[in-house]
Amino acid sequence: MSEEKKIPYKIYLSEEEMPREWYNVRADMTKKPAPLLNPGTGKPMTAEELGAVFCKELVDQELDNDTAYIPIPDEIRDFYKMYRPSPLVRAYCLEEKLQTPARIYYKFEGNNTSGSHKLNSAIAQAYYAKKQGLKGVTTETGAGQWGTALSMACAYLGLDCRVYMVKVSYEQKPFRREVMRTYGASVTPSPSELTSVGRKILAEHPGTTGSLGCAISEAVEDAVSHEGYRYVLGSVLNQVLLHQSVIGLETKIALDKYGIKPDMIIGCAGGGSNLGGLISPFMGEKLRGEADYDIVAVEPASCPSLTRGRYAYDYCDTGKVCPLAKMYTLGSGFIPSPNHAGGLRYHGMSPVLSELYDQGLMRAVSVEQTSVFEAAELFARVEGILPAPESSHAIRAAIDEALRCKETGEEKTIVFGLTGTGYFDMVAYEKYNNGEMQDYIPTDEDLKPGFDSLPAIG
Amino acid sequence: MSEEKKIPYKIYLSEEEMPREWYNVRADMTKKPAPLLNPGTGKPMTAEELGAVFCKELVDQELDNDTAYIPIPDEIRDFYKMYRPSPLVRAYCLEEKLQTPARIYYKFEGNNTSGSHKLNSAIAQAYYAKKQGLKGVTTETGAGQWGTALSMACAYLGLDCRVYMVKVSYEQKPFRREVMRTYGASVTPSPSELTSVGRKILAEHPGTTGSLGCAISEAVEDAVSHEGYRYVLGSVLNQVLLHQSVIGLETKIALDKYGIKPDMIIGCAGGGSNLGGLISPFMGEKLRGEADYDIVAVEPASCPSLTRGRYAYDYCDTGKVCPLAKMYTLGSGFIPSPNHAGGLRYHGMSPVLSELYDQGLMRAVSVEQTSVFEAAELFARVEGILPAPESSHAIRAAIDEALRCKETGEEKTIVFGLTGTGYFDMVAYEKYNNGEMQDYIPTDEDLKPGFDSLPAIG
Repeated sequence: MSEEKKIPYKIYLSEEEMPREWYNVRADMTKKPAPLLNPGTGKPMTAEELGAVFCKELVDQELDNDTAYIPIPDEIRDFYKMYRPSPLVRAYCLEEKLQTPARIYYKFEGNNTSGSHKLNSAIAQAYYAKKQGLKGVTTETGAGQWGTALSMACAYLGLDCRVYMVKVSYEQKPFRREVMRTYGASVTPSPSELTSVGRKILAEHPGTTGSLGCAISEAVEDAVSHEGYRYVLGSVLNQVLLHQSVIGLETKIALDKYGIKPDMIIGCAGGGSNLGGLISPFMGEKLRGEADYDIVAVEPASCPSLTRGRYAYDYCDTGKVCPLAKMYTLGSGFIPSPNHAGGLRYHGMSPVLSELYDQGLMRAVSVEQTSVFEAAELFARVEGILPAPESSHAIRAAIDEALRCKETGEEKTIVFGLTGTGYFDMVAYEKYNNGEMQDYIPTDEDLKPGFDSLPAIG
Repeated sequence: MSEEKKIPYKIYLSEEEMPREWYNVRADMTKKPAPLLNPGTGKPMTAEELGAVFCKELVDQELDNDTAYIPIPDEIRDFYKMYRPSPLVRAYCLEEKLQTPARIYYKFEGNNTSGSHKLNSAIAQAYYAKKQGLKGVTTETGAGQWGTALSMACAYLGLDCRVYMVKVSYEQKPFRREVMRTYGASVTPSPSELTSVGRKILAEHPGTTGSLGCAISEAVEDAVSHEGYRYVLGSVLNQVLLHQSVIGLETKIALDKYGIKPDMIIGCAGGGSNLGGLISPFMGEKLRGEADYDIVAVEPASCPSLTRGRYAYDYCDTGKVCPLAKMYTLGSGFIPSPNHAGGLRYHGMSPVLSELYDQGLMRAVSVEQTSVFEAAELFARVEGILPAPESSHAIRAAIDEALRCKETGEEKTIVFGLTGTGYFDMVAYEKYNNGEMQDYIPTDEDLKPGFDSLPAIG
């Protein structure tokens, strides 16, 4: 490998080559994703109703199914320049290790302090909040990637940032909490005494360690009950996929620059923020009949919303204060096994991705967590990056495909999204290193309570 | 800041532009750094003597005061491409925040899983060990940056890696330990039962939580008593500065590409690995009379080897098994205050840097740790990178200089080294966030035991 390669190890675009517009894949969809519904009336949420919770311009983006390209404001583009363009990496070392004829590329979004792609949407949402003259924003965070990203964006813009962090994470992941505090965010363990929904839950379940669903409900209540605040969310929403399209757009520009045509695009999928962003421009070509790609969502076998969920209207949060979304879902009552260490725990999937999946434009696979950590370890050792457990789902699927190519001799070009680093996930790695990690595949019986929690609406 | 800048936010070199040779600053020094001495005989260490502890080719590099440019083997250069070239970042956001006329650049070495520049020398040392046909290497680590870097390099090359980790760090920093284990290293808390020096210390001080000096002694004993092993070290040595010159060389190529001439070059200094590497080519120009630069070492006020140490022969380790080095030192008996959270705890300074400092070719300042964390927090919020405490010493000095420029109106061009990220240092950040961090400046009385521990030799 000593000669300079025709394709470098890392393709960096120049700042001039960075996208100037986000791409809205909904514009190219003939059948659009289903609208959000008001849980009270069962009718589509209006802009006015959504405006009580979300910033105005974000509501417009949420509801806009027609505009294909939306300009990235200069201020956001300047912020992007602090950590973007992110590299598209040719995985030469992994290819050599696997002895595969496949060519593997990954778009690495972890080279920023939030540790993941979440910053791409955090800065956009914070920017529009600032532009609207708000004082601050509220949100929830589980493992903390989204909260960290939002706290960074808010620090940069001088916005107040109030994060409700699931209590068990607050206590067991103090380092993420301290990163957020260093960025000036207030971090509250959820459930808390600060909100009525929090107080209610504490009264009913005094020993509870919290849940993402409860933290969402608290963050929303905090936003709507304080003048000058709105709620922001790091995944699932249409607007988030729009902002995250910067990942896919950069990937496409870099591939085009070197004349590389991918056969397969792989992304991990929890709520869909990374996958939706990565595949957007490729899916656009597919929708317009200009190109074909094998697009693959990878989810944990323990939280299999696409591969085993139902396509139905569901609550986005367990507190049921948010609008209903039509999505592939396990039901808001679904609780992943406590054994599950690998992230991607959300019960539903972005309505855009759900609709694309339902139309057969992408497929989904599920993988078990010990095999995910095996892939993570192998990748770390040869490619030098310790990946986030979430990202490692995509690594697993990419390695499986590369090994398949080794058998068949196919020279497929595989692109996958490496969403982030695992520096704050060492407890899970320790479990794996000690041989204590267990797999878990829910039985149909295990999935029943979740499905039973689905609303009758929609 | 919305227009495309003439100087981008981040200057990335192409892989073709990466240096093909390391630069050995000793070649341009008229008065060379003093040789290592055999502690038994008081005579300069021979290549043969050093070869019992270190790899052969590294011994040659250690002793070579004359060859200015040493080729970087292709295999090392390929490894470098996984995380290099590292970006030279224009700190536009920091400049704007400070409202300074100064132009600030930083060379960011933290975008790799080891989290710091240590990987530059780790891969070189592991490569020569592999080339010599060794089975593995041993080393010590305190906070864990070096151990992590070495474990990554060894995983890549298929070498065994045995790390002695100071017991208190092993227990209090389990995450770094797990990163090393993920890379396949064996990590042993030091002092241990594995070595005679460890057993001796455990017998004398049963409750000890270890020290870097003890861990060094154990790692050296392990290497010399096992066939096919050698000891490697991440700082202080001449060879380490040689490998780290890649930092300065890339910096200079990037600056030259845009016609930027720095006035001032700032680096944090513990043992000197980063500072020595960063300044090498600039110091070379200075030594050859081709250019002048204000070169500044920044050290913690609590461990002030350059600003308050003595230039004398000293032990490199507390176990006194290593050769003696002439360096600015506080004495191997010096113990930094337990309050000190900011890294850079080594009692001595690289002999090369010590000699350059003694000749007046660079200067040194010391800074207190709360002011270092203040700078770190400010930097994180505007530049988006959460810096390592070590690196933040350089940030502090750069900010101080930029603020000075603001008063005088000088448009100085400042370059500083940002050696790494602080993701594994959140305990220190937490202390700072909680207002519990204290400063400590040793009195002359506090320094006395260290100076008393200096050997009579040399």
